[in-house]
Amino acid sequence: MTALNVAILGASGYTGSELVRLLSRHRQVAIRALTADRKAGQAMADVFPQFVHLDLPKLTTIAEVALDEIDLVFCALPHGTTQTVIAELFAKKPEIKVVDLSADFRLADPAAYEQWYGHPHQALELQSEAVFGVSELHRAAIKDARLVANPGCHSTTSILPIVPLLKERLIEPDSISIVSATGMSGAGRAAKEGMLFSEVSEGVHAYGVGGHRHTAELDQEFDAAAGRTTRATFTPLLIPMNRGIYATITVRLSGGATAEALHASLTTAYWGEPFVTVLPFGKVPQSRHVRGSNNVQIGVVADRGPDKAIVLCTLDNLVKGASGQAVQNMNLVAGFEETEGLTQLAIFP
Amino acid sequence: MTALNVAILGASGYTGSELVRLLSRHRQVAIRALTADRKAGQAMADVFPQFVHLDLPKLTTIAEVALDEIDLVFCALPHGTTQTVIAELFAKKPEIKVVDLSADFRLADPAAYEQWYGHPHQALELQSEAVFGVSELHRAAIKDARLVANPGCHSTTSILPIVPLLKERLIEPDSISIVSATGMSGAGRAAKEGMLFSEVSEGVHAYGVGGHRHTAELDQEFDAAAGRTTRATFTPLLIPMNRGIYATITVRLSGGATAEALHASLTTAYWGEPFVTVLPFGKVPQSRHVRGSNNVQIGVVADRGPDKAIVLCTLDNLVKGASGQAVQNMNLVAGFEETEGLTQLAIFP
Amino acid sequence: MTALNVAILGASGYTGSELVRLLSRHRQVAIRALTADRKAGQAMADVFPQFVHLDLPKLTTIAEVALDEIDLVFCALPHGTTQTVIAELFAKKPEIKVVDLSADFRLADPAAYEQWYGHPHQALELQSEAVFGVSELHRAAIKDARLVANPGCHSTTSILPIVPLLKERLIEPDSISIVSATGMSGAGRAAKEGMLFSEVSEGVHAYGVGGHRHTAELDQEFDAAAGRTTRATFTPLLIPMNRGIYATITVRLSGGATAEALHASLTTAYWGEPFVTVLPFGKVPQSRHVRGSNNVQIGVVADRGPDKAIVLCTLDNLVKGASGQAVQNMNLVAGFEETEGLTQLAIFP
Amino acid sequence: MTALNVAILGASGYTGSELVRLLSRHRQVAIRALTADRKAGQAMADVFPQFVHLDLPKLTTIAEVALDEIDLVFCALPHGTTQTVIAELFAKKPEIKVVDLSADFRLADPAAYEQWYGHPHQALELQSEAVFGVSELHRAAIKDARLVANPGCHSTTSILPIVPLLKERLIEPDSISIVSATGMSGAGRAAKEGMLFSEVSEGVHAYGVGGHRHTAELDQEFDAAAGRTTRATFTPLLIPMNRGIYATITVRLSGGATAEALHASLTTAYWGEPFVTVLPFGKVPQSRHVRGSNNVQIGVVADRGPDKAIVLCTLDNLVKGASGQAVQNMNLVAGFEETEGLTQLAIFP
Repeated sequence: MTALNVAILGASGYTGSELVRLLSRHRQVAIRALTADRKAGQAMADVFPQFVHLDLPKLTTIAEVALDEIDLVFCALPHGTTQTVIAELFAKKPEIKVVDLSADFRLADPAAYEQWYGHPHQALELQSEAVFGVSELHRAAIKDARLVANPGCHSTTSILPIVPLLKERLIEPDSISIVSATGMSGAGRAAKEGMLFSEVSEGVHAYGVGGHRHTAELDQEFDAAAGRTTRATFTPLLIPMNRGIYATITVRLSGGATAEALHASLTTAYWGEPFVTVLPFGKVPQSRHVRGSNNVQIGVVADRGPDKAIVLCTLDNLVKGASGQAVQNMNLVAGFEETEGLTQLAIFP
Repeated sequence: MTALNVAILGASGYTGSELVRLLSRHRQVAIRALTADRKAGQAMADVFPQFVHLDLPKLTTIAEVALDEIDLVFCALPHGTTQTVIAELFAKKPEIKVVDLSADFRLADPAAYEQWYGHPHQALELQSEAVFGVSELHRAAIKDARLVANPGCHSTTSILPIVPLLKERLIEPDSISIVSATGMSGAGRAAKEGMLFSEVSEGVHAYGVGGHRHTAELDQEFDAAAGRTTRATFTPLLIPMNRGIYATITVRLSGGATAEALHASLTTAYWGEPFVTVLPFGKVPQSRHVRGSNNVQIGVVADRGPDKAIVLCTLDNLVKGASGQAVQNMNLVAGFEETEGLTQLAIFP
Repeated sequence: MTALNVAILGASGYTGSELVRLLSRHRQVAIRALTADRKAGQAMADVFPQFVHLDLPKLTTIAEVALDEIDLVFCALPHGTTQTVIAELFAKKPEIKVVDLSADFRLADPAAYEQWYGHPHQALELQSEAVFGVSELHRAAIKDARLVANPGCHSTTSILPIVPLLKERLIEPDSISIVSATGMSGAGRAAKEGMLFSEVSEGVHAYGVGGHRHTAELDQEFDAAAGRTTRATFTPLLIPMNRGIYATITVRLSGGATAEALHASLTTAYWGEPFVTVLPFGKVPQSRHVRGSNNVQIGVVADRGPDKAIVLCTLDNLVKGASGQAVQNMNLVAGFEETEGLTQLAIFP
Repeated sequence: MTALNVAILGASGYTGSELVRLLSRHRQVAIRALTADRKAGQAMADVFPQFVHLDLPKLTTIAEVALDEIDLVFCALPHGTTQTVIAELFAKKPEIKVVDLSADFRLADPAAYEQWYGHPHQALELQSEAVFGVSELHRAAIKDARLVANPGCHSTTSILPIVPLLKERLIEPDSISIVSATGMSGAGRAAKEGMLFSEVSEGVHAYGVGGHRHTAELDQEFDAAAGRTTRATFTPLLIPMNRGIYATITVRLSGGATAEALHASLTTAYWGEPFVTVLPFGKVPQSRHVRGSNNVQIGVVADRGPDKAIVLCTLDNLVKGASGQAVQNMNLVAGFEETEGLTQLAIFP
């Protein structure tokens, strides 16, 4: 079988190293290039010593990548610059495929992009072409896509459990209140005071309250599902762990819906999905039970009153919340088995 | 000055040791007795080696405590048995004062107690006599109380920011959605599988969803403040840290209220309070900034839409959420300066 | 290809679940039985929800295992009872293979066993038959073994870097001082006060000082390598993490040996080994770079004076320190590729 | 009583904030100035929100400090620049007292300084004047000092238990092997990749192996105590916690000494010391039992053979390892009660 030749742009960050972890064990992929502009020339094992026993390409600049040898590019670069980089990639090689892990192509609406990111989009045509990559919800479009916009980690965690409920009109769109607790690795590897061990351990705090940019992704997907404008309240919490996102979602039930009906709807929606498990009604998921895997666990619990329910969803922010879903999307784009390279089980304890 | 002679029943647990930590440095208190039925005969330093250099009474059984030498009893025993123990204390010495850290006397309504705890209360008269001990909100009654029911840690964290808002009718009582993240120490020192380091670290999960018993305390205080029935949704999260509670509370604004109005209301309500700080509007508290102290920090942030706000409140579950507030209540009962023994600053990092 | 049919005795502990994690993705193994006497009848996913999407046998008692269908047994039971269980297994089916993860068969010398474990061994013949399972050092014997005694996690971490140095007489046998820092998961899943999150987080302490039982395994292997009696000083530290062992070993150089010579010796000894990497001279390993993998990383650093060196070795206590090495030994016993099922890369961050 | 007026130079780091925590509750000290050159103009509570309810001076530059109002300066600046800053302080106001928390004046020998820090000392006269501030060992000299060089956190942890043993010739000077595990807060607040939560949590590694600069402080104090040249092997470990240092020290006994003799020697040496507790023979200290306090706990355990012992010592690196000992030294310099402001008990859990 011919291997798919891939390049990873931005390999010195955590989503980059996670792509290497997964793709090194993918049977149909060959990693042909790894870039990290400021660390070009170094071995990947200098930056991530867990790979010391692997035979990997050296880190290079993006300019050094021989695009003619590459079939698909994973782009794990900072948002903002990504749109220019990808536009140039397609200019040089229009038939190349791209799975982008930045935020640059997630919002289909140019006005929404400009509102949330504070400047006009620099690659408007690509923005409209990009497919939003929640694999389970946009599978058909992803298969045909040239550019997949891998969604945010918080977004995936809330979109998966809420979109089916909105589609079936089981919950009131204005009532959605999300508290999404996340570990530190989602913030990346840039050295910032607020990310130091001493600033993060043994404590918790909210951030981006009332205005986190992943809210825009929720609006986009929730509005489409509900067929109307929704305005979920979304509050991220930073908690002292590395991996994992855990969304606690309070919803008001619509009409005569019950918590059991929500559970039934989600069970049906994800029946047969290899990576999404809806737990038995009333069971509460734990982030540690998906750690290191591409798995998602969803729970639905009734509140004590009849009109509300609590929906809980958890995944590993670096896997299903980033690099794992990127590989899943690559599998779809390339026509591989969707689970290839992604069957590792969670590490617990 | 004559010292207040105190006994601590249940000194081998974390709230017991925290009482010892605080009271050992209180200038008007003498610790006369420490009990721990199953560890009677041991030195306190055998159970908590941080006290090895202190001169403390040996652990005894409750029966061994010479009540005639005791002015005030802290009761840090498991709920259920506590009501019988305290009834016996008062039977033997009616003029003794009690600050109870268990849940046994928190609910004034016998029916509510029976509903949430599954059995009729065994000391009904005391139940109606007990004063619910959120110090800032029930100060006058606590000063005159013989029996103070120290509130739950989650309860205090949500009651402090929400009660003033309900009293002023600034928020819709049915809209309150609370996610209350807590560290492990609140669960005590009993050896249970779910509390092992390997089960708790590097992960997060909700517990008691839809039915945590602290909800009953919220109902009691929220209903009284709102003058009507309220039904907040309350979801606790267990996160991998020792100390700290962090409540993320989403509320819908009532009538024409604004998030700024909420902030103003709380600022006024807690003006001059030594332990409660309302941060500037829009500022987000962090649990680590109150760790080890009796302090509370509250933040109010506007949601992106005009009709909702996020209220954030944090405290140390073992201090203001348990033993610190118990000492504060003791200070009120004994007529001491309210801050005596409680001025230690937070430990960060 | 015919699968190897295996049973895991003691599947409700952490080494049991780790065996399931690894073996579920092993292409030549079928898990036929999982036992947990006190949890018999439950689904494995009730005990370890990370396996909820797998099709695994129910937990049973040991007595219920149909031995005629089993080719190889992993025994992850407490020490002491294990020797009787395994003796019974062989009595019923002499040709079965056993990889034992307990301490029962690690010491070949009955006197040493009795001294360290406080009672005579109950299966003396098996004790002399068992092969000590440091895969890299006893590969040939393991291949022919009916009973492999998987070594302790601390033992493996110190034996791998020290045995080659003793064999080549590069270090003084009396000078070996080992401080072996370990995470909590090595202590298992039994609910004990000292293993609670609140007792373990944000702190460190030594344990088993001067007499940890893994010392006996070090003596056995070190003595054999040195050709004389050795008496290493071995001090384990418990540190607040889940996975990982990290041995800091101070040694005095023998004769004219240099730290560089130690490095060269280890590099040669482990040349071509798939799971053991000797880092470049002077480089310091980190436990997080082997987390979740079967990998070992070794570093050698010169002390500031000419006569001493520091040897550092790290591995994941649940993988190479327990279940991973058990699978590696199974691969040897069964004649499989030694790396099959064990190529997962470390999870970092 | 007239208060001692103090300034804290470098108040935006962790030792600075810890000084504020302790001195704010010291009854004979007034904090008159706080400096942080890059954050000058900000409120201390902007940098450390745990102080939001305190009335503290604004952060200023060093140049803005009105030295005529200051009696004593705590210098919590980076090493290297400190020597110049302090020389200027004394030039302006020779009678001022200084407690320096940097490394600049710890080594009395200019050659040793130059060797370990790579450049000649810039204030040679002050270097010879400075008193090395392990309070318990140099108390008399500290009382008369104008400049106290507060020792390193690792140094204090090893010097306290080892110096008395060397003085009494109970251990062999060449045999000392120290593994000193530390939390992250000792590395300060500068944003560096290696200090990120994701790089530090769930793992352990050695650093500065064979050449950590605190070794020079050990040499200085060990040599003086032994009356000869010593060369301890010193290996620091970074473990995932905030506070605490834990030294595991393996020693070979000298002549006929026993582990019990070591214990007796240390018990005598620290008899009556308010901050140093020698645990009963064979008892093992835990870092969490001194967390947040100025306390030190020492344990002595016999190895299994007759010729070696393990000495264990722990303290909080930010308190007794830095700011607490600095306050203790200030108390000595100012003639205050040595324990004033330092009686806070450890926070556990």
